[in-house]
Order: sequence, then structure tokens, then C-alpha cells
Amino acid sequence: MINVGIIGATGYVGEELVGLLLKHPQVKLTNISSRSSSGELFYDLSPRFKGTITLTCDKPDIKKICAKSDLVFLALPHTASMDFVPQLLKAGKRVIDLSADYRIKETAVYEKFYAVKHKDKLNIKDAVYGLPEIYKAKIKTAKLIANPGCYPTVSILSVAPLVATGIADIKSIIIDAKSGVTGAGKKLAEGLLFSEVNEDFKAYKVNVHQHGPEIDQEISKLAGKKIHATFVPHLLPVNRGILATCYIKKTQGSKGKAGDILSLYKKFYKDGPFVRIRKPGDFPRLKDVVYTNFCDIGIQEDGESVIVIAAIDNLLKGAAGQAVQNMNIMYKFPEEAALL
Amino acid sequence: MINVGIIGATGYVGEELVGLLLKHPQVKLTNISSRSSSGELFYDLSPRFKGTITLTCDKPDIKKICAKSDLVFLALPHTASMDFVPQLLKAGKRVIDLSADYRIKETAVYEKFYAVKHKDKLNIKDAVYGLPEIYKAKIKTAKLIANPGCYPTVSILSVAPLVATGIADIKSIIIDAKSGVTGAGKKLAEGLLFSEVNEDFKAYKVNVHQHGPEIDQEISKLAGKKIHATFVPHLLPVNRGILATCYIKKTQGSKGKAGDILSLYKKFYKDGPFVRIRKPGDFPRLKDVVYTNFCDIGIQEDGESVIVIAAIDNLLKGAAGQAVQNMNIMYKFPEEAALL
Amino acid sequence: MINVGIIGATGYVGEELVGLLLKHPQVKLTNISSRSSSGELFYDLSPRFKGTITLTCDKPDIKKICAKSDLVFLALPHTASMDFVPQLLKAGKRVIDLSADYRIKETAVYEKFYAVKHKDKLNIKDAVYGLPEIYKAKIKTAKLIANPGCYPTVSILSVAPLVATGIADIKSIIIDAKSGVTGAGKKLAEGLLFSEVNEDFKAYKVNVHQHGPEIDQEISKLAGKKIHATFVPHLLPVNRGILATCYIKKTQGSKGKAGDILSLYKKFYKDGPFVRIRKPGDFPRLKDVVYTNFCDIGIQEDGESVIVIAAIDNLLKGAAGQAVQNMNIMYKFPEEAALL
Amino acid sequence: MINVGIIGATGYVGEELVGLLLKHPQVKLTNISSRSSSGELFYDLSPRFKGTITLTCDKPDIKKICAKSDLVFLALPHTASMDFVPQLLKAGKRVIDLSADYRIKETAVYEKFYAVKHKDKLNIKDAVYGLPEIYKAKIKTAKLIANPGCYPTVSILSVAPLVATGIADIKSIIIDAKSGVTGAGKKLAEGLLFSEVNEDFKAYKVNVHQHGPEIDQEISKLAGKKIHATFVPHLLPVNRGILATCYIKKTQGSKGKAGDILSLYKKFYKDGPFVRIRKPGDFPRLKDVVYTNFCDIGIQEDGESVIVIAAIDNLLKGAAGQAVQNMNIMYKFPEEAALL
Repeated sequence: MINVGIIGATGYVGEELVGLLLKHPQVKLTNISSRSSSGELFYDLSPRFKGTITLTCDKPDIKKICAKSDLVFLALPHTASMDFVPQLLKAGKRVIDLSADYRIKETAVYEKFYAVKHKDKLNIKDAVYGLPEIYKAKIKTAKLIANPGCYPTVSILSVAPLVATGIADIKSIIIDAKSGVTGAGKKLAEGLLFSEVNEDFKAYKVNVHQHGPEIDQEISKLAGKKIHATFVPHLLPVNRGILATCYIKKTQGSKGKAGDILSLYKKFYKDGPFVRIRKPGDFPRLKDVVYTNFCDIGIQEDGESVIVIAAIDNLLKGAAGQAVQNMNIMYKFPEEAALL
Repeated sequence: MINVGIIGATGYVGEELVGLLLKHPQVKLTNISSRSSSGELFYDLSPRFKGTITLTCDKPDIKKICAKSDLVFLALPHTASMDFVPQLLKAGKRVIDLSADYRIKETAVYEKFYAVKHKDKLNIKDAVYGLPEIYKAKIKTAKLIANPGCYPTVSILSVAPLVATGIADIKSIIIDAKSGVTGAGKKLAEGLLFSEVNEDFKAYKVNVHQHGPEIDQEISKLAGKKIHATFVPHLLPVNRGILATCYIKKTQGSKGKAGDILSLYKKFYKDGPFVRIRKPGDFPRLKDVVYTNFCDIGIQEDGESVIVIAAIDNLLKGAAGQAVQNMNIMYKFPEEAALL
Repeated sequence: MINVGIIGATGYVGEELVGLLLKHPQVKLTNISSRSSSGELFYDLSPRFKGTITLTCDKPDIKKICAKSDLVFLALPHTASMDFVPQLLKAGKRVIDLSADYRIKETAVYEKFYAVKHKDKLNIKDAVYGLPEIYKAKIKTAKLIANPGCYPTVSILSVAPLVATGIADIKSIIIDAKSGVTGAGKKLAEGLLFSEVNEDFKAYKVNVHQHGPEIDQEISKLAGKKIHATFVPHLLPVNRGILATCYIKKTQGSKGKAGDILSLYKKFYKDGPFVRIRKPGDFPRLKDVVYTNFCDIGIQEDGESVIVIAAIDNLLKGAAGQAVQNMNIMYKFPEEAALL
Repeated sequence: MINVGIIGATGYVGEELVGLLLKHPQVKLTNISSRSSSGELFYDLSPRFKGTITLTCDKPDIKKICAKSDLVFLALPHTASMDFVPQLLKAGKRVIDLSADYRIKETAVYEKFYAVKHKDKLNIKDAVYGLPEIYKAKIKTAKLIANPGCYPTVSILSVAPLVATGIADIKSIIIDAKSGVTGAGKKLAEGLLFSEVNEDFKAYKVNVHQHGPEIDQEISKLAGKKIHATFVPHLLPVNRGILATCYIKKTQGSKGKAGDILSLYKKFYKDGPFVRIRKPGDFPRLKDVVYTNFCDIGIQEDGESVIVIAAIDNLLKGAAGQAVQNMNIMYKFPEEAALL
């Protein structure tokens, strides 16, 4: 049994975290804090929780948080986490940060895409990228988890087996991704108003989205060489879920031996209980994964190319669910605890 | 052929007005202005208009507007119109104001519900409430039209025949109204974000909505006595349309003679080409009226009560379409011009 | 630990039941059957369940079902349950029927509204109407539960305290209800196609919906006299949730003493852990209750009237969740087991 | 002034055609027919048309249709048009067929993808593929127009300039298309139910959609060599609109000289008033084109590749609007008549 706290509990991701942690048999959620809503009962802010939680939102006070927590989740906007992480680590707490602040190893890239100076370069190096299907061993002992972005989670899981084995022509990778709107949080922006999003669909930040370099960093590491994938995100008029349609050409050499790409995926993810590979010709839809922590992947070979379609719930496998999965691994709880 | 201008062309209602006026055979749209987007090509702000309009948004300058317009539409937020109306009237222009500023005859009521001092009490008195099905004669010669609100349009049309003939028990009127989200404009508010509205439904401002006193004022006038209707608006996860379900008890005396309520409605609206009365047992749905200027009404007698269900497009019959209908009447154009 | 089976597991309600029962600590789901999909793996039909259930759908065979079950849930369409219930009861099994077949005590009314002859009149009498907030004592020992309809659940809970105490003028009760589309099941009907429902809203079966007599039966029982409520259902373009806006006039006598209606509701539901009464002036929205088993109720007094707004998830408190709640009561499990 | 008829007026495309033709100043809509709804007033079937049309749906009787029509539109399901076209042509009528029956020049391909024998091979040869931006000259004198499919319209317009000029590497063309649901018509299929489509998103018929060969046929013709594009359609939870995101590699030779791809597109479509090329870095969204006949195209060069994003309204530029555009060209009406 561990004590955990959440800083930033009132956003969409924070609410999901609260819901998961309340159901977790080995966790006691002892404190939640919020910069904007301190002093309020959590269930007054989120009435669906009335009857299941009695905590009040605190102002984020590191000392108090540390006194009550073995592990702290940060569900803050990008650029806000790095104000809290150094002190939490110094106090000996383990930290799972759901923002982008510790994901990008090259500070210059982070600073370009997030348009701020990084204030805690020291801890970036030791942060473990919390994608359990790739980094489970490191996660077990990590002090600081950089929990992956939603688009990177689904994108990396889609192409990792092809990239890691040299089957993918690394100049050919195209990721056409479509995301529900909660991915953008509760930000007040005209482009997120109901009347703007509903009955609409569009690409945005074409090839300049901040998740692009995160994807490139991770698949480059897997390939052992620099990759720039074409990444085009789109905004879907649904609340939850991301579906990525990926197009990858096979390398010349691999054509003969590619054999069963499907088997390759199954083998690659054999220790990943939350990746489900579909039967040949069968592709996932959002409904198969929303409100779950699963990533479903369907594959079709198309001559010299492979089409891979994968889907996740952006708030769960793409955020809060994956954070809990990381916690489970860190504390040797069953990997599925609170997630099935 | 008349020259017209629009102040506040870039909101949802303004865009609809532009679209209608561009199609109108007797109108030349000569100027559009916007407080927030002056200097920009209208079609850069609303790309769907590219190829149909070449106007640039001006800063609202009364002198220039007057020089180019016989009639001016104001599609501004509530409380902003009264800054422009006096000067336009003084310059001899006819004005159709789509805000609430000139709808409420009792200034105290306006000031309570819109939380501002009224700056132009003088012109309220002569403003004609622009509901053509009730006030067509006055509209013909009006200098200033107070174009009705969307909820009041559908609510008043729903109950007017019963109220005006004494059939309605005036203490019994219940209006349960459901509106699409464009009714709230492009306001940045958390409650209007896609992720909040989509897959949700709720009542709001229960019995305290600012359209309540507007409805009460108009149906009281029809009845010749003070009425307070119960008015409960709800927010529907659709872009356009309002559907009102109204419950009215019949007065004791009327029970015997009520006879055919349907005939009463048909007779009451016989000169209103945009009110369509449905067959017995048949009720309108939003799809029957959105993207049209019609108000469809279905009626069912239920013992001592009458259930009336009416639907309109909030941006057309509830705003821009009705404004054009008023203009048509003011200038003796065919009432349906640009509206079919 | 009990063994349970589900007949009709592949509809929307059946899927919810499967999900809840898999999470229940005192239940073993041993068999699921389906008339249309026998022989198929459940997770092939509902891929979101892959990894959490390995059962195959059987053809419904009473003998086999009885051999494997202490309790059987029937999640079949109306008129299909009565083919199975008599044999299950004869075999000594306890039954929770989610169809309408055993809800209506007057066979003639059932036969009129469901347009079939009833085949099992014998067992109607002993069926307990499974609304725990009203009938908990009887549910404890029931052999056959007639699980309430979704509209009746929210409607009865909305008005019961006023009706049971004589505060409601029984001739004045209006229930304006709005339901998400899963309430209609997976029926192939043009009116349920996405292109028809999306961006639309409408009333349907105005005052002739089959849930009308179910509501009337139950509130009449509470009042001790015959009540006919005005019941107008509407179809909302959302997947889940029902919100009912109810208008009730208070009786003459009650006006003075009504006092705090809110306290009355709290007291009436003090033993109902799934009814949450909102603070004064605060009303529920669908998001507060979907994916939960709660019924949230907000109340506003309005002169001689009371406005009550209540919301539930039609698939949970309105169907599968309430069925599990009934099972929990029948077997003395914690009432909230698997439901929080 | 010409007389026109519509066979198949009651589907989504038929309704759009009725709406457009009623507004057309040079057209008299003299007859509409429907196999399923003959004898009914059109506005009883589509109440939004009440007040604008008084026609009754006839049973489709070729003789009567020919007596009343110079031109006949067929808005029938695929495989039904070829029952009517031969007789209409024999009677000397001009025909615009909105089904797929005359689009595919190779009968074997048609028969494979539509799973029926073709009954009118004779007329396929002379049918003109009605994409005005490519075939305007032929359309002018055509007797029979095969009006393009919705996906092919947006897909071909997206890549035509690159394919026709040899800039596209023809082995590299990927079309990731996302369509609203009206594209599927009013077909009763579980996959088109609101509860299935809403809050969902999925790819379907991956690389086997019947519009694939139509796209391949037309772009092959433009290239002068056989092309097979990768075509992955997805189902969007919106009523109207298609957005296609296309990825094309440039050929080796073209890399140096490609220069301004944007200028190429502008030049290629300079006589196409309904194709709008966006500014650099600017991409269309569905809202820019729905309820219009425009096809908006945005382009971004990305190293050796080009990303092209195009959007249309599937019922207008993808069906009824394009049909009217074809009619306008055939009869030398202004190309934009009834379409702006």
C-alpha cells in the first residue's frame, strides 16, 4: 500500500487519474492539489465523483505533499511541471510527470517546440520515458517518469516493430493521426468551442506539432539512426480516442524475409498486456479502446508497403492509464491493477 | 435596390446575414464592419465565402457607414448596440438591431437581466419588436427594429394563438426549450468547449434566463394581462436549432368551445408564410427547419391541456433570417426574398 | 460467490452487464448466450473485451444455463423474455429480467402497448419491480425481478417524494424527458441512423410511449390513487444518458407546509446510496451521471410549482447497473459492489 | 429554360438535387420519381421542403418522364441506374447519372467491385466522366454523364496537377480520406446506426473500397500510365464533408524544377471556378466547404514529398452540386448557376 498525491487534479487527465487511483487496491490517494481550485471539494468541481471521494483540493505545497505521498503524479500543463519536479525528487519522492517537460532529451528541441526556457535540465537525463512496452526494465527503478504524449504513444507503438528490426524504410514513415478533443485539455480557445469543432474535421500543425520531435526521438533510438517521420495530426469531433493510420515502405533487403509482419508484432509485444494485435484484415476502431488502457493494432501488407492502424484512449493509454501502468511497474504491483 | 451595411459581421449571426444579403436580388451589401477584425478580408476570416464576397471588414465608423447604407443591421453582442443606434437613427438611417438592447420596454428589467445601465432609453419606446407574425403592420414603417431573441421567437409563436384568444390558462404556461450551441455565439467559456458540450445535455439558467422577461412581455401584451411563463432552457449538443415543448392548460370556459385548436393556429398564422402548422399528431424535428427561415409547429390536445412543439433555426428565424424578413417587409420586397 | 449467466449478452445492455459482472468480487460469470451470435467468442463481437473475458456465446439452452447459474439475467428485447422466465423459475433459479415483460401488472395494458399476447401471466403477479429506492425489502427475497425501464427509473425517482407525500397535485405532473440513443438498442430503423439523429432533436411517441403506463402504474401506487402523468420523450443526439425535466404543481393544502422540499427528497432517499440530491439552485447534467449508477436530482421551487430535474445513465441506473444493484440486494452483497 | 426530372429523389443526394434545381433560374423541375415512395407528396417525405415544392413522387415511368423532361438526373443506388439509362438515351434525352454504373470503363472491374453483371455495356464507352475541372470540353456535348463518386472527386482533384505533369512518383501516392456519414446514404446497416458511429472513428474497406479503381482509372489516364494509389477511407462522425490528406513523393527528375507547386495548382485549375487553392501553410477544414460546391485545396512541400489536403461537401461537389455544374456546362448556363 502506497500513499500517492496528484498535482493538477482538476483537468481532464487529472480527473481520470483520480478515478483510476480510487479503484486501485494497493494505493491510497491521500492528497490532490490544484493551482486554480484550492479549497474546493473535489466532488463539487466534478460532481460525478460525489460519493466516491471526500478530498478537498489543496494549494500545491511541496512540503505538505511530500509529507503525505510516496509517489506524486503531476498532471499539469506543459512548462508547469518543471517548477515542482526538482523539489519532489530532492525530497526523495518518486515522480510520474504527465507533461512534456522531461520527455525531450535535447533541450534545444524542447525549447523550440514549447517556446520556453527549460528550468531543470539536470533531471532530464535521468528521466525515464514511460512507455512500458519499450522501457519496462528502466521503469522499474525510475525515480522520474516522463509519461509519453498521447500521439507519441500510439505512433511509436504503431511503427516500433518495423523500425527496430530494420524492416521500415526510415525515409518513408507517414503517420496520419486523428485525435479527439480532450487531448487539448480545457484550454479556452475559439478553435475548441463546440460550434467550431462539431461537424468539422481538419488537419492542424501539419508537420510542426510538438509531438513530432518526441516521436522522432524515440523511433530514432529504436532504429539506431536519425528518423524524421511525416506526422500530420487531425482534430476529430469526438471527446476521446486517437486513431493513427501509418504508411511504411519496407526496405529493399527486408522484402524477401519480411514474412509474417503480424507475427513480428505479436512477438514484439508479447510482454505488453495492453497491446492487442488484431487478426489479419481486421482493424481497430475507437470504440474498441476508449475507456480502456489498451492499444489495438491492425496491420495490412500492401505490396512494398505496410499499413498499420492503431487506436488508444488519449486520456488513458495516452495519459492517466499509462501513468498508472508505470506506477504498477515501479512498485511491482500487477501491471493491470486498476486498469481492467 | 437598397444599400445595406452590417456592423458586427464576423459572429455566427453576422456570417448568416452576409450569406443571405449576398443572395438578395434587391439588396447591395456595401459595407461590413467589425470591432475586432477591421482591415481583414471577410473571406479570410470565413473562408467558405471566398469567391462570393470581396469586401474588407472596416472599423465601425458611423459616418462612413451612413454614407454607404440606407439600412444598417447590427449583429453585435448585447449592450454594444446602444452605442451605435442613436447616431444611425439621427442620420436618418433605418436600423435592424439583432441584440437585446431595444427589445425590453421596461428599462429596469433590461438592466437587471443584462447587468448594465441602458444608455439610450429614448429610442426604446419607438423600437418595433420585429416579430412579423404579430407586428407586420408596425414593421412596415419602423425606423428601428428590435429583432427578437431566438428563444422568444419560437416560444411566442408557440403559444400566441392560445394566449391571444384567452384559451390558455395564463398561470399554466410551461416552455421547456432546447437550443443548439451557436445560440451562445463565439464566446470563450469553459461551458461552451466541445469536450464539455458534446455527449452532454443540461438545463441552465432555470427560470432566470434573460429571454424569460422578453417572452413574458410579449405574451402579456397579447393576453392583455401580466403573464409569467415557466421557462427552462437546455443546451443541446448540436450546432443549430431550437425546439420548444410547451405545456398549456386550457381555461375552464374554453374547454367546451376550444374545438379545433389546429384550425385556430392555421387561422392565426394565415398571413405568416414562414409558420407551418403540422398535421394532427405530427411534430417537427430540428432537421425540418435548420438552414431555413421556417417555424414549424405541431399541436396535440391532451385532455384539459395542449402540448405545442415548435422548432426554428436559431440563426435564421431566430436571428438573421428574421432580420431579413423584417427588411423585406420594411421595403415592400417579397417577404420571402432571399429566404427560400 | 455465486454463478451467474446472461441471456442476450450482445446488445448494448448485455455488454454493460458483462462489464459490471466481470468486475464483481462475489460473482462468477459462467455463461452467456445469444440467439443471434451463438458459437462466437464474446470478444470477437465486442473487441473492447479482449483480454478480460474468454467466454463463447452459447445458444440459449435452459438446461445448460440452469446447470451453470444460480442467477440468470435476461437482457432480451421486450416480448422475448417471457419465453425463458417460466422454465428458469421452475428450475429454482432467481431471475432478473431487463425487458418490460413482467413490469406491467395489468396484462391488458401490456398487451396494448407492446402489441403481443402475454404468455406467462402467472408469474407477473409475483415479479418484484426492481427499483431499490422504493422496493428494497421485497427485492431481498424476490425470485423474479422486473428491472425497471430507463425512462421510468428517472421519472419515478424524480417525482416519488412529492407523490408519496401528497404534495403533488396529481393532475399536474409533466415529465419532459430526453434520452440518448442507446436506449433504443441496436434496432435497424431509419430513424436511428447517424445521419438522421446527428444534429437533430425531436419529440417522439408524444403521450403514447410504452413507458408511460409503467410510470403511471408506479406513481399511482405511491399516491394510492390513479395518476396519469403527461410524458413526452425526446431523442437526444448522444449515446448515453437521460435527463428528465419535471413540472409539478403543489396541492392547495401542501402550500403552507411544504417547507423544504429539498429536505424531503434527502430524507426520502436517505437509504438509497445511488440517489444524490443537489444543492439548492444546482441541477445535474448528463456528464455527472453517465458511466455511473447514480441518479442525480436537482430541485427548484417556483411559486406554486416545483421543477425537478434528474439524470441517469440509461444503460446503468436505467438498465444493467440497476440490475446489478438488485442482485447485490438479493444476495446481501454490498449494494455498491461493482458499481462504484 | 429546360425541363428536368429526377429519378430517385428521396435519398440524401436526391433531396439536395431538388433543393438546387428549385433555386435554378433556367430550370423547371417538372417531375420527380421514386421507387419506394410513389404517390406521396415530396414535402411530406421531406418536411423541410414544405412551402417550396408541390410535386408528388411518381412511380418511375420512362414514357411519362421523357414526356416531361429534356434532361434526367438519376440519383439511384449503384446497379439500379443501368435499368433506366438505355431507354432515356434512346428517347433522345440527356442523362446525368449519379450512380457508379457508367464510371468504370473496364466492365470486369465494375463487376468485381459492385458484384453484379453490367446490363448496358454499350453505353459505358460514350459516357463522359463528369469532372468539369478535367473534362469540361467533353461535358458540353455529352449525352450521358457519369457523375463522379465523392471520394474520387476530392482525390482526383487533390493529385491531378502532380500526376498530369509527371511530378508525382506514381508508385508513392497515398490518399488517406475521411468521410461524413451521408456518403453511405440511408442504408439500414448496424454500422451506420447513431450509437455505433457517434464518438467513433475507423478505417474501413482498407485498400478494397469500390472508389479505389475509379480513382486509379482517372489518375492513370492523366499520367498516361497505370497507377495504383493507396486509398484508405475512414468514417467520420459528421453528416457531411470529405477531407482527404494525400502524401505524394516527387520524382527524381522533378525535384529541381518543381519550384512552386502552389502556382502549378492555381494554373491547373484556373478555369475551375469551384476549386480554391489556399495560401501556403493554410489548409481547408470541412466547415469551409460544407453546404457549398467548392473543393478547397491546401499544399505543403515536405522535402521530397508533397502533402495535399483537400475538402468537399460529399453531397454537393461530391454528388448533386457537381451534377448541376455538369448540367450548367451542358446547357451553356453560367457554370455557377444555383451553386453560389
